[in-house]
Amino acid sequence: MSNITKKVSWSSRGDELGAAGEGTPLLNGSEQPRHSRQEAARGQPREIPHNEKLLSLKYESLDYDNIENQLFLEEERRMSFTGFRCLEISRWLICGLIGLLTGLIACVIDIVVEKLAGYKYEAIKQNIERFTEVGGLSISLILWAVLNFSFVMVGSILVAFFEPVAAGSGIPQIKCYLNGVKVPRVVRLKTLVVKVCGVICSVVGGLAVGKEGPMIHSGAVVAAGVSQGRSTTLKKDLMIFEYFRRDTEKRDFVSAGAAAGVSAAFGAPVGGVLFSLEEGASFWNQMLTWRIFFASMISTFTLNFVLSIYHNNTGDLSNPGLINFGRFESENLNYNLYEIPLFIAMGAIGGVLGALFNVLNYWLTIFRIRYVHRPCLQVMEAMLVAAVTATVSFTMIYFSNDCQPLDSEHAEEYPLQLFCADGEYNSMATTFFNTPERSVRSLFHNQPGTWNPLTLGLFTLTYFFLACWTYGLAVSAGVFIPSLLIGAAWGRLCGIWLASIASAGSIWADPGKYALIGAAAQLGGIVRMTLSLTVILVEATGNVTYGLPIMLVLLTAKIVGDYFQEGLYDIHIKLQSVPFLHWEAPATSHWLTAREVMSSPVTCLNRIEKVGTIVDVLSNTSTNHNGFPVVMQVSDNDEPAKLCGLILRSQLIVLLKHKVFVELAGSRLSRRKLQLKDFRDAYPRFPPIQSIHVSQDERECLMDLTEFMNPTPYTVPQETSLPRVFKLFRALGLRHLVVVDDANRVIGLVTRKDLARYHLGKYGLEELHLAQT
Amino acid sequence: MSNITKKVSWSSRGDELGAAGEGTPLLNGSEQPRHSRQEAARGQPREIPHNEKLLSLKYESLDYDNIENQLFLEEERRMSFTGFRCLEISRWLICGLIGLLTGLIACVIDIVVEKLAGYKYEAIKQNIERFTEVGGLSISLILWAVLNFSFVMVGSILVAFFEPVAAGSGIPQIKCYLNGVKVPRVVRLKTLVVKVCGVICSVVGGLAVGKEGPMIHSGAVVAAGVSQGRSTTLKKDLMIFEYFRRDTEKRDFVSAGAAAGVSAAFGAPVGGVLFSLEEGASFWNQMLTWRIFFASMISTFTLNFVLSIYHNNTGDLSNPGLINFGRFESENLNYNLYEIPLFIAMGAIGGVLGALFNVLNYWLTIFRIRYVHRPCLQVMEAMLVAAVTATVSFTMIYFSNDCQPLDSEHAEEYPLQLFCADGEYNSMATTFFNTPERSVRSLFHNQPGTWNPLTLGLFTLTYFFLACWTYGLAVSAGVFIPSLLIGAAWGRLCGIWLASIASAGSIWADPGKYALIGAAAQLGGIVRMTLSLTVILVEATGNVTYGLPIMLVLLTAKIVGDYFQEGLYDIHIKLQSVPFLHWEAPATSHWLTAREVMSSPVTCLNRIEKVGTIVDVLSNTSTNHNGFPVVMQVSDNDEPAKLCGLILRSQLIVLLKHKVFVELAGSRLSRRKLQLKDFRDAYPRFPPIQSIHVSQDERECLMDLTEFMNPTPYTVPQETSLPRVFKLFRALGLRHLVVVDDANRVIGLVTRKDLARYHLGKYGLEELHLAQT
Repeated sequence: MSNITKKVSWSSRGDELGAAGEGTPLLNGSEQPRHSRQEAARGQPREIPHNEKLLSLKYESLDYDNIENQLFLEEERRMSFTGFRCLEISRWLICGLIGLLTGLIACVIDIVVEKLAGYKYEAIKQNIERFTEVGGLSISLILWAVLNFSFVMVGSILVAFFEPVAAGSGIPQIKCYLNGVKVPRVVRLKTLVVKVCGVICSVVGGLAVGKEGPMIHSGAVVAAGVSQGRSTTLKKDLMIFEYFRRDTEKRDFVSAGAAAGVSAAFGAPVGGVLFSLEEGASFWNQMLTWRIFFASMISTFTLNFVLSIYHNNTGDLSNPGLINFGRFESENLNYNLYEIPLFIAMGAIGGVLGALFNVLNYWLTIFRIRYVHRPCLQVMEAMLVAAVTATVSFTMIYFSNDCQPLDSEHAEEYPLQLFCADGEYNSMATTFFNTPERSVRSLFHNQPGTWNPLTLGLFTLTYFFLACWTYGLAVSAGVFIPSLLIGAAWGRLCGIWLASIASAGSIWADPGKYALIGAAAQLGGIVRMTLSLTVILVEATGNVTYGLPIMLVLLTAKIVGDYFQEGLYDIHIKLQSVPFLHWEAPATSHWLTAREVMSSPVTCLNRIEKVGTIVDVLSNTSTNHNGFPVVMQVSDNDEPAKLCGLILRSQLIVLLKHKVFVELAGSRLSRRKLQLKDFRDAYPRFPPIQSIHVSQDERECLMDLTEFMNPTPYTVPQETSLPRVFKLFRALGLRHLVVVDDANRVIGLVTRKDLARYHLGKYGLEELHLAQT
Repeated sequence: MSNITKKVSWSSRGDELGAAGEGTPLLNGSEQPRHSRQEAARGQPREIPHNEKLLSLKYESLDYDNIENQLFLEEERRMSFTGFRCLEISRWLICGLIGLLTGLIACVIDIVVEKLAGYKYEAIKQNIERFTEVGGLSISLILWAVLNFSFVMVGSILVAFFEPVAAGSGIPQIKCYLNGVKVPRVVRLKTLVVKVCGVICSVVGGLAVGKEGPMIHSGAVVAAGVSQGRSTTLKKDLMIFEYFRRDTEKRDFVSAGAAAGVSAAFGAPVGGVLFSLEEGASFWNQMLTWRIFFASMISTFTLNFVLSIYHNNTGDLSNPGLINFGRFESENLNYNLYEIPLFIAMGAIGGVLGALFNVLNYWLTIFRIRYVHRPCLQVMEAMLVAAVTATVSFTMIYFSNDCQPLDSEHAEEYPLQLFCADGEYNSMATTFFNTPERSVRSLFHNQPGTWNPLTLGLFTLTYFFLACWTYGLAVSAGVFIPSLLIGAAWGRLCGIWLASIASAGSIWADPGKYALIGAAAQLGGIVRMTLSLTVILVEATGNVTYGLPIMLVLLTAKIVGDYFQEGLYDIHIKLQSVPFLHWEAPATSHWLTAREVMSSPVTCLNRIEKVGTIVDVLSNTSTNHNGFPVVMQVSDNDEPAKLCGLILRSQLIVLLKHKVFVELAGSRLSRRKLQLKDFRDAYPRFPPIQSIHVSQDERECLMDLTEFMNPTPYTVPQETSLPRVFKLFRALGLRHLVVVDDANRVIGLVTRKDLARYHLGKYGLEELHLAQT
């Protein structure tokens, strides 16, 4: 029946589920010997610490299904229509707040980066100018390197020592969160602070990074904080928005926050909504979408407004995002039908280069996981990269002899004269000696002839490797802008080449158009988004003329890139061994059924259970289950019993903490009736079982779970095929799915890891190892 | 427990469900007397033929859940990975084809309308010019009226006599289809032909209609046809794409088709995707989205390319949609912060006017349903409207004395001189004497001073009522363009007024900007879309600068409009008594459980059932059920029995047709084993039970349903709350949901109508009547 090799190391398999440890006989006992044999033959997979064929057990799931227990239903039933309307209004209010705060954070990042980078480049520029004439430019190099070095060191120390989860762009983490995986500490205030400071340091430190990706993470953290009406870190509870203190509601706000982040980063409110939906949501709800849209709008509006004041231009809202690609005017930038094949070819190049980038980064990440896992090593690596980046940039500028006349109209921010004649500047410096955002803009808009092809070629080559090395460092930084920059450089190169083989003055004449296409191709090849990225790029360039070519390019880049390697974010998610659920079950998994997929036997609890039993079950570190089916009566001989509900570890913890015990005589021990508020107050950081003291007398008491369990958990019969189970699980955002037999008796439990385990490899369906990494 | 009044007329209640007729005792017998009493007290609700408080039983559901029976699973398990890849490639291929054909249809409509309208306006113009001097313009009026009259008559006869479902824009129908309601004949070839011819006639006939809405319907029909690889109407089966012959797959293609339609109509590929998702989808799947996007792209590309050839401008792809708003150049059209409140105010005006439009149209539709339901009456009404439209237009032009100098730069298509001086033209005629698309463009782009305020005011007023009267006629036509036109007219009026109170040359100077905002406000107020409409308008204007204001305006218009009345499409869906499922269950429905919502008792079938019983059950016209739970053994005393599967009427029909009988002795009567292909061949027009002859001998045979039933239908316990049932039903696109007790015995069945019945009225939760209208 099951003809794939079961590679699960059962001994280490205690995840979300109530499956008993190894000692208990398996229900489908006939399969047990085969497993053991294979396990013995296989050796010990746990010796390899990190591997994309592993699924980590350390990640818990979020619960996007409402726990409709009696308490919840009573509350809902008590609530009037006006009550629901108030809730709806608060949801809109929170979304507005999320947008506002995300926009303000983006402003802070933007202004601080601009100021600091300005000081830095000004200082170095003056230094270089002084030493160009007298000789001794090595002093300038040292100054440059030391400045970069120091900024990056601060950023890296913050990330590596204080909050490692703030490393990188945060997009993979937010993807996981929206998918339903609880990434520890990902939406905490501390993470936000480290992220914001870290991204400022790394951008000012001159690394090949962007400040846009982290905005998405920042927006998500803001959303998770604001929607809860309290901060656990600051120990401050405003006593508002208590209704939203559960995973279901929080997720909706986090998706709004992520969208607001995209919106602030790129000035792309629609793109933000699409990003949230493309990367996160599965069940599309119209009202939710509108709220997300509202948050996005407010976010870009706030950013715009504050920046217009900062730029002494109050009220001019034409400065939409952190990155501003400048406006492409359509008159001189039309495209024609015969350019479409060229665009598609560029998309293919982008796909190949993107896959190359991803493969290199994959190896590098494996290397880092194995050898660079201590914080101080990580800081040192980051500092090394900073120094190398400065040195390489300097060397490139130094040896470049591409001098261009200074054009007063399109003045560069920091034109470096170096060895050029008076009234000229070094054109290599416009790309290297600047923040990446400005370099992208120059590549898009500078007039033909600003760079010679050699400069661009060299720049592409060096920047490609620098960016590839940089992504994955223990700094807070995004990959969007470096990708765009690489793509814009080789795209412009293509444009120059095309112009040179065509007659002058033709439609080919403007290389800026090809820079845009190249940028789209490269970014698409690396991150493999299509719909949202199209809209983001269209909104960021302020012109829809290029909508169609950008789409074509992104689709081509995706198809070509997927042929070689997954997208960058997916690679990092896989390398973290996250149990990520894709959109659909693997195509060839129809012959697997719930019976083969589920974990069994299941640790069940009685509806009225002894406190001692519950404490023992929860304290069992070898299993560490998070959800327990509640049954009519657990039989002694492990026969399956009739399902009557489902209860979570977190709920049991709260019950134990409040000592909701009933003495055998029937009298209640707890002072008052437990309310939903008690559960909400404990959310989301439920104390560990070890912190709850239960006396020997109390152990003998009983606990009545009827009121607290979810009496109507979703169930499937054991013959249900894997795709069907998967669809149910994914569409409803479940955490536990009970498998029952034809008399409604519990015979297994399906959790996220049971489903994420199966994936389509090169040789058909493969099963991942589960490991306690 | 249930404190709302149950208003269902049980006697007429035979819908999707396997509930037995009235004679059988109800399981929850205690409630039975109450129902009967209430029914008696209530009178006969069926006397009111159409009412938004009714839910029609004539609409069946589509089944968006795969029937995973043994046949299906065997096929899936046989299929190799390459097989799945081929399927995936065919899906992309089909989407490409859908885009191509939709684009071509759009081209045909566009070119034919342009040609015919050109001849018409040219003829009338010459006639008017001839008679202006000699007097006797009444002849011109008669010519104009007769021309309109004839075109509209042809279009209306086609719709009223041949295919009534082709009336209107088709958007409500497609919304219903994507929601899971089977609207009869909505995706047939005949409908497409009538739709296309009809829309050409009504646009050329000078009605206040647009040709954009019908494109969405056309795209959907194309998709439903292409994806099946055959045409039942033409009796042509290409024997390809057989795998896609089921509701689940077909729906995906239909949403791609609708998106392609939007894309072709407005040149808005992203807007098309969002339209499909905002209006239709519930479960968002990344791959599906990409395919939809691809279809949209191809569609706009095809249209562009063909039109560029037609306009002798091959390869210039700047002509993106059926409607082209012209390019808003951003330099002279910036907006400032202090204009935002103005925009919001205009949004509110749009909301109020939109609600007014909807209320008027609602009354009109009620009137039509009551009194104008015979085809010949419908044709006469359409002809009347055509004549009135021509007369009103002519009168307005005749009495207008707003003369403007002919400007060679912005030349009008058909400038009417009438009584103006030489070198001048009548400016009222630029709005009335033109296709609505061109009028919108003139309002957006003509220079300040082209119209005087009185002209615009009169135009708004008359066109508002004309458009309102026109929508709902038995002609094939959309409401997008008339709405935009009304809005653009009053928006421009606002702009003129603002310019007059401000100093000259300021930012207020251009009324075209306000025309755009007004157009958005009016359209938003009528149809109440936000996200997709924003994107559509942004893409159609080719400029993202106005993204933010348009969003604000649309949101305001929606909020204000919703306060008074629903959106136009929703009104029409309600008036058709369609069991439409909204995004979420009504907020205050938590106290309802599956037990109260479900229909019971249920007609169940045995796993091995007598043919006679099956024929009898299917032939029972008083119930007319479509799905039957299959149980272990139906007991004689109507005790609930254990569930073991679910089988549909359509499957049983195919089984009966192929005589898959087993004699009592056990020998098979059927010649060959039934395959999935047999079911696919019969899809979607399964013969009625009356057409199948079963002899008396055969009635005594048995039928083994095991292989054909869905062995793992989704179930819920009877205590499940309505929102939970609703979420499961909606997220998975179910048709039947079995309610079981704690021993997995069937006690009820929930169908679409059971859920759609509950809605939030003014005084809390209300229940709709079910009626066989």
